Amino acid sequence: MPNKIVVALGGNAISSGKFGGDIPSQFAQSRVTAVHIADLIEAGHHVLLTHGNGPQVGTVLRRVELSRNEVYPIDLGLCVADTQAGMGYMICQCIRNEMVKRTSDVTATTIVTTVRVNPNDPAFDNPSKPIGQFYDQETIRLRIASDRWVVKHIPNKGYRRVVPSPKPQEILEIDLIHELFDEGRVIVCCGGGGIPCIQDPSGGYEGIEAVIDKDLTAALLASEVDADTLAILTDVERVCLDYGTPDEKELDTLTVDEARKYRESGQFPDGSMGPKVDACVDFLDRTENPNARAIITSITSCLDALEGKAGTHVVRSR
Amino acid sequence: MPNKIVVALGGNAISSGKFGGDIPSQFAQSRVTAVHIADLIEAGHHVLLTHGNGPQVGTVLRRVELSRNEVYPIDLGLCVADTQAGMGYMICQCIRNEMVKRTSDVTATTIVTTVRVNPNDPAFDNPSKPIGQFYDQETIRLRIASDRWVVKHIPNKGYRRVVPSPKPQEILEIDLIHELFDEGRVIVCCGGGGIPCIQDPSGGYEGIEAVIDKDLTAALLASEVDADTLAILTDVERVCLDYGTPDEKELDTLTVDEARKYRESGQFPDGSMGPKVDACVDFLDRTENPNARAIITSITSCLDALEGKAGTHVVRSR
Repeated sequence: MPNKIVVALGGNAISSGKFGGDIPSQFAQSRVTAVHIADLIEAGHHVLLTHGNGPQVGTVLRRVELSRNEVYPIDLGLCVADTQAGMGYMICQCIRNEMVKRTSDVTATTIVTTVRVNPNDPAFDNPSKPIGQFYDQETIRLRIASDRWVVKHIPNKGYRRVVPSPKPQEILEIDLIHELFDEGRVIVCCGGGGIPCIQDPSGGYEGIEAVIDKDLTAALLASEVDADTLAILTDVERVCLDYGTPDEKELDTLTVDEARKYRESGQFPDGSMGPKVDACVDFLDRTENPNARAIITSITSCLDALEGKAGTHVVRSR
Repeated sequence: MPNKIVVALGGNAISSGKFGGDIPSQFAQSRVTAVHIADLIEAGHHVLLTHGNGPQVGTVLRRVELSRNEVYPIDLGLCVADTQAGMGYMICQCIRNEMVKRTSDVTATTIVTTVRVNPNDPAFDNPSKPIGQFYDQETIRLRIASDRWVVKHIPNKGYRRVVPSPKPQEILEIDLIHELFDEGRVIVCCGGGGIPCIQDPSGGYEGIEAVIDKDLTAALLASEVDADTLAILTDVERVCLDYGTPDEKELDTLTVDEARKYRESGQFPDGSMGPKVDACVDFLDRTENPNARAIITSITSCLDALEGKAGTHVVRSR
């Protein structure tokens, strides 16, 4: 049986630098990423891909802001949709081209993905995810008045819009994604955590202003498609304790209990390793697959990590 | 056997007014469209959807232009990708919600679609498709210098960029689309004619600055998935001869030979009915399905047209 692996690509897999670089540099970075994904495919793994969209959705929002006096704005859900297609197109083209080089006819396809959240999620009472640019006080006042933005002041930098980041509850396209994954097709889905929506009592869906953590969506995705492995790729080889201090210590394995304990003690901050560790724990909590494992590593070490030779492996017990 | 129908939605199916309206009005228009699509599904037709993106891609380009001094620009292919996801998301959500109202669990999914064109297509020697906004002479000179734009002067309105509109040769995701269509799934694909790309001699693909006529891509799509019917929906009930004159005459049927003859004599201009008639002829030329038919009508008449009671039916012979 092939290993069914959900790979969650970080923003750095498809962009370079804080603002994501321009399109040629995003293509260049995607080509590098595609080599590693092709290695996974050639090694016999079934790969289902998802990805972050931080820098890209930031530029979409920036364009919307800079043109809002002349062109109608688009809501957050549509901003996420835009990045799903644009980034999915780049990733799929680069994977296809890399497979062509290897005389393989494996292709990759992007599916636009919507993710339901709970309108009663506590995140809606406490918007915490900063998005878009910094504003001065005068401008942000206007936007609070006109668009009911919730904002956060960051000393010496200015004001920034914050939006709710509710937990993903359901991937609306999951049946199709599961079917295609089991067929062995390479699919890119749930980009940017998915387009957030809520369901009304009559059963209909509508978009909502929020962003969903892409690693938590990856965990839901991995459990729903019965993946053997969730691989969360980032820019470090392993999760560390006391990161950035002289006592820094790389972890080969991390049990679910240890992960919860360290998370509570502040070892894995919300803005960096925290959501990745949470996603690994969440996957292991959700899945009924007895062989399930979750790995946090870099894209260059992913293949080695799948063979147990690299990365931090989050496990139920040692 | 169910009727396999490829429905090509015009811009007016998902937008209102010249500039597409804002997002709430695009959703409102999509909800109306979804009622008609749901009627087709409930009547037992297998529906594969594609759509234009004229007003929407215009606004994406406008945002890119208005923010290009501060945010990196994106190329035409990525602009098309953006609209595939944004519009596909809206269409799929509205269809899902309409089906929920009818206590059906039919859903719809959007696939990001790339379409190969021939780099030797004569269209590349004669860019003719106007895109984006009008510019004054001074601004357009700068853009010609910096981005090698080809432009066209329209008296009293200004200068406008023109891009090649090559013929679609191959839909890269066609195997998957065909499989899902045959399973009876409702798929939205090839939006805006598809993201244009070319293939290099080594077999790799890359994007190219062009736009593909959405009706010609719909014809290719319909023949590739062995559709029984290509339905091109627009804002009139039927194709007319001497349109807009006192001698205007609606056509119930139009043979391929007549279509070619009228097209040559200037009855169906390039900017309006021409490409739609060409697409119908192209579908009938390509397909090996002996029962194939092509229909041009409005979305409100589509169901009647499928029953032979409305629309203009383009046929091989009478």
